[in-house]
Amino acid sequence: MEQHSKAEVLIQALPYIQKYYGRVVVVKYGGNAMIDEALKQAVMKDIVLLSLVGVKVVLVHGGGPEITEMLHRLGKESKFIGGLRYTDEETARVAQMVLAGRVNKDLVALLARCGGKAVGLCGMDGGILQAKKLPSEPDLGFVGEICGVDVSLIRHALDGGYIPALSTVGCDGDGQVYNINADTAASAVAAKRGAENLILMTDIKGLLRDKNDESTLIPMVAPSEVPRLKAEGIISGGMGPKVDCCVEAVRQGVKKAVIIDGRVPHSILVEMLSDEGVGTLFADPAGGAL
Amino acid sequence: MEQHSKAEVLIQALPYIQKYYGRVVVVKYGGNAMIDEALKQAVMKDIVLLSLVGVKVVLVHGGGPEITEMLHRLGKESKFIGGLRYTDEETARVAQMVLAGRVNKDLVALLARCGGKAVGLCGMDGGILQAKKLPSEPDLGFVGEICGVDVSLIRHALDGGYIPALSTVGCDGDGQVYNINADTAASAVAAKRGAENLILMTDIKGLLRDKNDESTLIPMVAPSEVPRLKAEGIISGGMGPKVDCCVEAVRQGVKKAVIIDGRVPHSILVEMLSDEGVGTLFADPAGGAL
Amino acid sequence: MEQHSKAEVLIQALPYIQKYYGRVVVVKYGGNAMIDEALKQAVMKDIVLLSLVGVKVVLVHGGGPEITEMLHRLGKESKFIGGLRYTDEETARVAQMVLAGRVNKDLVALLARCGGKAVGLCGMDGGILQAKKLPSEPDLGFVGEICGVDVSLIRHALDGGYIPALSTVGCDGDGQVYNINADTAASAVAAKRGAENLILMTDIKGLLRDKNDESTLIPMVAPSEVPRLKAEGIISGGMGPKVDCCVEAVRQGVKKAVIIDGRVPHSILVEMLSDEGVGTLFADPAGGAL
Amino acid sequence: MEQHSKAEVLIQALPYIQKYYGRVVVVKYGGNAMIDEALKQAVMKDIVLLSLVGVKVVLVHGGGPEITEMLHRLGKESKFIGGLRYTDEETARVAQMVLAGRVNKDLVALLARCGGKAVGLCGMDGGILQAKKLPSEPDLGFVGEICGVDVSLIRHALDGGYIPALSTVGCDGDGQVYNINADTAASAVAAKRGAENLILMTDIKGLLRDKNDESTLIPMVAPSEVPRLKAEGIISGGMGPKVDCCVEAVRQGVKKAVIIDGRVPHSILVEMLSDEGVGTLFADPAGGAL
Amino acid sequence: MEQHSKAEVLIQALPYIQKYYGRVVVVKYGGNAMIDEALKQAVMKDIVLLSLVGVKVVLVHGGGPEITEMLHRLGKESKFIGGLRYTDEETARVAQMVLAGRVNKDLVALLARCGGKAVGLCGMDGGILQAKKLPSEPDLGFVGEICGVDVSLIRHALDGGYIPALSTVGCDGDGQVYNINADTAASAVAAKRGAENLILMTDIKGLLRDKNDESTLIPMVAPSEVPRLKAEGIISGGMGPKVDCCVEAVRQGVKKAVIIDGRVPHSILVEMLSDEGVGTLFADPAGGAL
Amino acid sequence: MEQHSKAEVLIQALPYIQKYYGRVVVVKYGGNAMIDEALKQAVMKDIVLLSLVGVKVVLVHGGGPEITEMLHRLGKESKFIGGLRYTDEETARVAQMVLAGRVNKDLVALLARCGGKAVGLCGMDGGILQAKKLPSEPDLGFVGEICGVDVSLIRHALDGGYIPALSTVGCDGDGQVYNINADTAASAVAAKRGAENLILMTDIKGLLRDKNDESTLIPMVAPSEVPRLKAEGIISGGMGPKVDCCVEAVRQGVKKAVIIDGRVPHSILVEMLSDEGVGTLFADPAGGAL
Repeated sequence: MEQHSKAEVLIQALPYIQKYYGRVVVVKYGGNAMIDEALKQAVMKDIVLLSLVGVKVVLVHGGGPEITEMLHRLGKESKFIGGLRYTDEETARVAQMVLAGRVNKDLVALLARCGGKAVGLCGMDGGILQAKKLPSEPDLGFVGEICGVDVSLIRHALDGGYIPALSTVGCDGDGQVYNINADTAASAVAAKRGAENLILMTDIKGLLRDKNDESTLIPMVAPSEVPRLKAEGIISGGMGPKVDCCVEAVRQGVKKAVIIDGRVPHSILVEMLSDEGVGTLFADPAGGAL
Repeated sequence: MEQHSKAEVLIQALPYIQKYYGRVVVVKYGGNAMIDEALKQAVMKDIVLLSLVGVKVVLVHGGGPEITEMLHRLGKESKFIGGLRYTDEETARVAQMVLAGRVNKDLVALLARCGGKAVGLCGMDGGILQAKKLPSEPDLGFVGEICGVDVSLIRHALDGGYIPALSTVGCDGDGQVYNINADTAASAVAAKRGAENLILMTDIKGLLRDKNDESTLIPMVAPSEVPRLKAEGIISGGMGPKVDCCVEAVRQGVKKAVIIDGRVPHSILVEMLSDEGVGTLFADPAGGAL
Repeated sequence: MEQHSKAEVLIQALPYIQKYYGRVVVVKYGGNAMIDEALKQAVMKDIVLLSLVGVKVVLVHGGGPEITEMLHRLGKESKFIGGLRYTDEETARVAQMVLAGRVNKDLVALLARCGGKAVGLCGMDGGILQAKKLPSEPDLGFVGEICGVDVSLIRHALDGGYIPALSTVGCDGDGQVYNINADTAASAVAAKRGAENLILMTDIKGLLRDKNDESTLIPMVAPSEVPRLKAEGIISGGMGPKVDCCVEAVRQGVKKAVIIDGRVPHSILVEMLSDEGVGTLFADPAGGAL
Repeated sequence: MEQHSKAEVLIQALPYIQKYYGRVVVVKYGGNAMIDEALKQAVMKDIVLLSLVGVKVVLVHGGGPEITEMLHRLGKESKFIGGLRYTDEETARVAQMVLAGRVNKDLVALLARCGGKAVGLCGMDGGILQAKKLPSEPDLGFVGEICGVDVSLIRHALDGGYIPALSTVGCDGDGQVYNINADTAASAVAAKRGAENLILMTDIKGLLRDKNDESTLIPMVAPSEVPRLKAEGIISGGMGPKVDCCVEAVRQGVKKAVIIDGRVPHSILVEMLSDEGVGTLFADPAGGAL
Repeated sequence: MEQHSKAEVLIQALPYIQKYYGRVVVVKYGGNAMIDEALKQAVMKDIVLLSLVGVKVVLVHGGGPEITEMLHRLGKESKFIGGLRYTDEETARVAQMVLAGRVNKDLVALLARCGGKAVGLCGMDGGILQAKKLPSEPDLGFVGEICGVDVSLIRHALDGGYIPALSTVGCDGDGQVYNINADTAASAVAAKRGAENLILMTDIKGLLRDKNDESTLIPMVAPSEVPRLKAEGIISGGMGPKVDCCVEAVRQGVKKAVIIDGRVPHSILVEMLSDEGVGTLFADPAGGAL
Repeated sequence: MEQHSKAEVLIQALPYIQKYYGRVVVVKYGGNAMIDEALKQAVMKDIVLLSLVGVKVVLVHGGGPEITEMLHRLGKESKFIGGLRYTDEETARVAQMVLAGRVNKDLVALLARCGGKAVGLCGMDGGILQAKKLPSEPDLGFVGEICGVDVSLIRHALDGGYIPALSTVGCDGDGQVYNINADTAASAVAAKRGAENLILMTDIKGLLRDKNDESTLIPMVAPSEVPRLKAEGIISGGMGPKVDCCVEAVRQGVKKAVIIDGRVPHSILVEMLSDEGVGTLFADPAGGAL
């Protein structure tokens, strides 16, 4: 492309940059975008760019496949109950090690290579995530429920110009470690930190009316519509908890919560810096979201 | 263009944005870019975009044609001596009025319409430009020479997040107003404010080895080469003072001074946010400019 | 006068200086005080002195005679309807140029010569005055009504130790320029900025019970008395809008609004730094103004 | 006097106020001005006024007569050797009590009644004055020599908008209290705090060529002239140490040191806010003092 | 004691230090602890240590015995009415001098010798204590009642890292000096400054059920129990006003008010840095005090 | 022990606390103190206490045994060459995961349980440690040499009141991870951050003249003595590199570098808060270290 057309593209992004200037955006990073090297790079560049144009980005991530692989290498097979990992003491310890030591710090290094200034945190740093045992039947072990969020350290990092990358392991007052769902953690941090935007990256185009037909994407959902969509079975399976995270964030004041397709490069930038919304947006219709 | 290609363009600008983040850039705005409405809009959008991505832009402008036209309407013909306007008392007063009251404030309003937060200043505000009579033979009247620069107000405006637009009329201790060359003023402000970059917009592609052949553009000149280029007649006519402004700025610590073609839309963005330099760059080869 | 008596005078000013320390005072400058050179100097010195003793002075000005004269020189006669200037497109453009480029910057230069640090602003800088067409019958053209006031830039200038001088031209979202009544603008800025005091300079001693007898000055008026004074015809003609500006300012929290006689040198200082009030004071009797 | 003449007086003070704005001035208060109630009030008002117009005033005082009187009431007669008080343990204790508890706090209360915000300190607060025994023959007891000055607390008080009043008792590392000459202490504080001006109040018109003839006042002395003036006997007696304090302050960077006549009301204001210098000024002729 | 046991002791203090970190604690210093040299040193060291571990300590003191002694030396016998000193004009003046000049500054010097950075204030400095005549029958003279507290100067001193030592003499708007009860002043300052803790040092173990039996110490009292304890005669005599000060402080938001035994070395540290409460604690049972 | 003796102990620590107030101390944590649970707790409590009394502690750690164990569990035996771990790609990845994800975050959680506010960092966060391959013969794989230290993030964390815990894995510009010796990293961070004190915890009493006799401890060594002690074989084996780290830190301005015995509980506190130095101190004799 010729340079002047490129300049035009930058100019077109202007109103969107203005809209997000100085605002907090929490990105839950996951799925294919964490595995495919090209997608990974694209996401990190998106985040560094947003950070440079004045957006305060918080990167929240999980890392299920990496945990599974490490457990496997340690001779321990992963066990899932209703889609959730059964987490015994050793699994919790491995999850902490893999998420906070490998996945998280690799992201920090990658952000640095893209020119970003990042700091890798987990829920135990600065007491960001206080956890307790998630009550469940049957028992899931040390799967954590968030019982307290302290965003001081995240605020401090953002104020210092750092991009905080957060792995979602947390502990309780006795130091017991819990593995916490990353979507839930991202939603809780976004709400507590007064974020403008919560972005959940998934491996699907968004909420589809017909799961097998991407052309049936529902571009926007008001929280009040969710119960009906659940009743109709349109929100079902793994999409249920993700939608709940979005709705909860919006209820607590986050302006927009979006489920976007992480398989498409730069979907974060497209979502934020154009009016071509991608995926499914959850927002209070009266709240004035675009 | 498709959204994902657009995102790619944004991403390509990343390293350049990082390079200029928090730096001061002084843009001397003039020529066709001040007359053609589309070019005018493009320049203002470039400046607002740069301001949003963290560049501290100072916009310096003249307005010869507007002064000539107003003088004409007031029944007074402009008189030029060696390319410089003979400036009697009335002309100086009209220049102040037209530059500080019309051209300057129109730019402020245009920047606002592009989403920028601007403040229109002239050399008398906060004592930015202290002037005295430029000694000349024959006498040019109240054409001013800069004898003092105080950038406190410009710094204050930038620190408050405002884009300062500066019209280059100044006065002396007795309140006598002088019309000051805008290229010279831009160079002096860039040097005093410790700018990273001085950009002079002109109506030519840059310094040409053969004036009639744009393919003979000289992309980069070291200050030490200037005397030879003058001796060879390659730097001549109106280009001489512009080159001197660039060299002086570089001598006083400005990293890069560039003469760019204001007739091309977004030439500022192209110059700053790509490695396809436009126009002619003046820089100390040892200074490490790109 | 002997030095020790002079010192006594300074000492007598002490309690008044203490009263206004750190407070905002908006002065609408106009009338003879803008024409007579000695009065002009006296006003500027008053303002610089107040600024030095810790008062945050905002200078608001119009400039009708200068506009009329420039229009005349441009071959266009001024047209007034009910005392208000009919403002076609060209008149609005000339008003902007004369007010923001000549009158305003001349005041800045004069304040500097008196030792003040001033910055010349108009309603378009930093979006201070958002204007729209004043509805009127017959049509007055581009005479503006204030539909928004943003005092951020004025606050920023004051915090930086600068005296902001404001010419009251503003524009709407499309960049259309409007000429705005300076009394109204001063009142609006005083109210929005939480001023202690609004001072309107006029060419009359104040509100007179009998227009032809200065000994019938009414020294103080409570806002509640205004309707009766209007009914009695004591407030009439050009005094009406000025009184309305004062009342509106007081209603919005300004402690004192005063109409003073600009023909008397240093009337601002006398008003503020002595208990010999000059002119007519508008204040809420319960509000505790002196 | 009529109000407008009074305003003129204020205006005449303008350039002097500008000159001292934000500068530190150390006033050594003493002599008749500490005894006569009207003079006392006049001095305190001068100081509050200076403080309001932006001068950072430090008030340093002694209190010989009050010490003598208290000693007398306690049945102990004062003993002087060569003009200096012989200070035994009890005398030092009484001096501390009278200076820091009575004279100092009375001044603080008086400044408050004049509208000033003052804080009463002695040399022991914040370690302002570190003292040791002044070597002398014959022995003077606990008369102190300054061996260290820490102006942090004075700076802190000034930055908080307080007028620090300092009584010049100090102690050594063992807590032994010393009575310190107030002229010397004022000079040392002025030098350490980078004062613009040191003012020593006395009961004489200044340095007189003929002690008996006030018309022989020497208005200005360069430090280099002092040895000759001493040799000629013009500087002699109690004037000697005062002149030495002035010279030492000037040598250490204080711009002006002045010995003024405290018997004349408002002599501080006259000295500072007019060009009618009073008393005798010590300044480096090359240093550019007025 | 061996070093490692000593380290253990420091470690045991950890949770208490954490609890008081950054909090304000007002200590009313008095009784034997002001007379016995060893106790005095111990108290000052306690205060310096607390200050270093991040507690913001305000030291409030009286000095009855010193006043009595000085009056006696001046040939004036002290007169007490119902335990309160009859304070004529001269007594008030002597009290000011002794408290603010001797007792206060001696404490400042002692704190400095213990490594603390202190500043000695009285109620007149910065207008900390505004006083008026305490109405009483029979008349007590210039015994003051607090009618206004301004803690700005205390806050300023604490923010600068200084330990403010406050002697409780104050004055009214006419400069009349009053002697103020130090317990009352400490309580008022603690309430106004939002202190965590008020500590009143006395010469008794605390509130005793049987005055003659220290084993009957009442370790904690809820404000609501006070009337009953007074009715039973358990709170009587000099203990009454002290209890009232504690109750008033707690009512105004101070978390804990404690009457402790100043005869025991380091009782302040023991009270604050262990869970072995000493003396009698007044706290709202619902307020969550330890 | 009785409470008042305990208070005495706190008081004895006073001068040491004053000495380190606001200073940076870098503690290299390792050896038995990382394995024994009681010692671990004691160290963390020491650090939290120091942090509360105003010392800015940076905790640097390695974790060799944990790496070895994890490698073993992954079916990979550790290989050492001359005492240094041969680090292939997989080993480097495991080291990163174990150090940054397990050891580091466990310490953060433990500090939190002791009441500290900690943040767990590795050399990649904020670009703290830039590494390159350590040249060695035979090749050691990805053992890193420090080629750049950026302490901005550590400074930011300390300024925010956080205790930074640093695991010493770093990467180069290509993202290649290296395992870095923790003693070396602690020394480099101490030098770059301008630390007052570097403390290296080991499993030996200090530098012994006779390795088998603890009574031959050398309490203090000047850097200039080191070559001789090496020549005499007193510094040999693993002690060599540790001594070099100490000497290098002192050469770069660290006041004291100490090798202490981590097997003794609270050895950090004893070293810092008493004059009973423990272990061997390296300091410039002219540098004034205690």
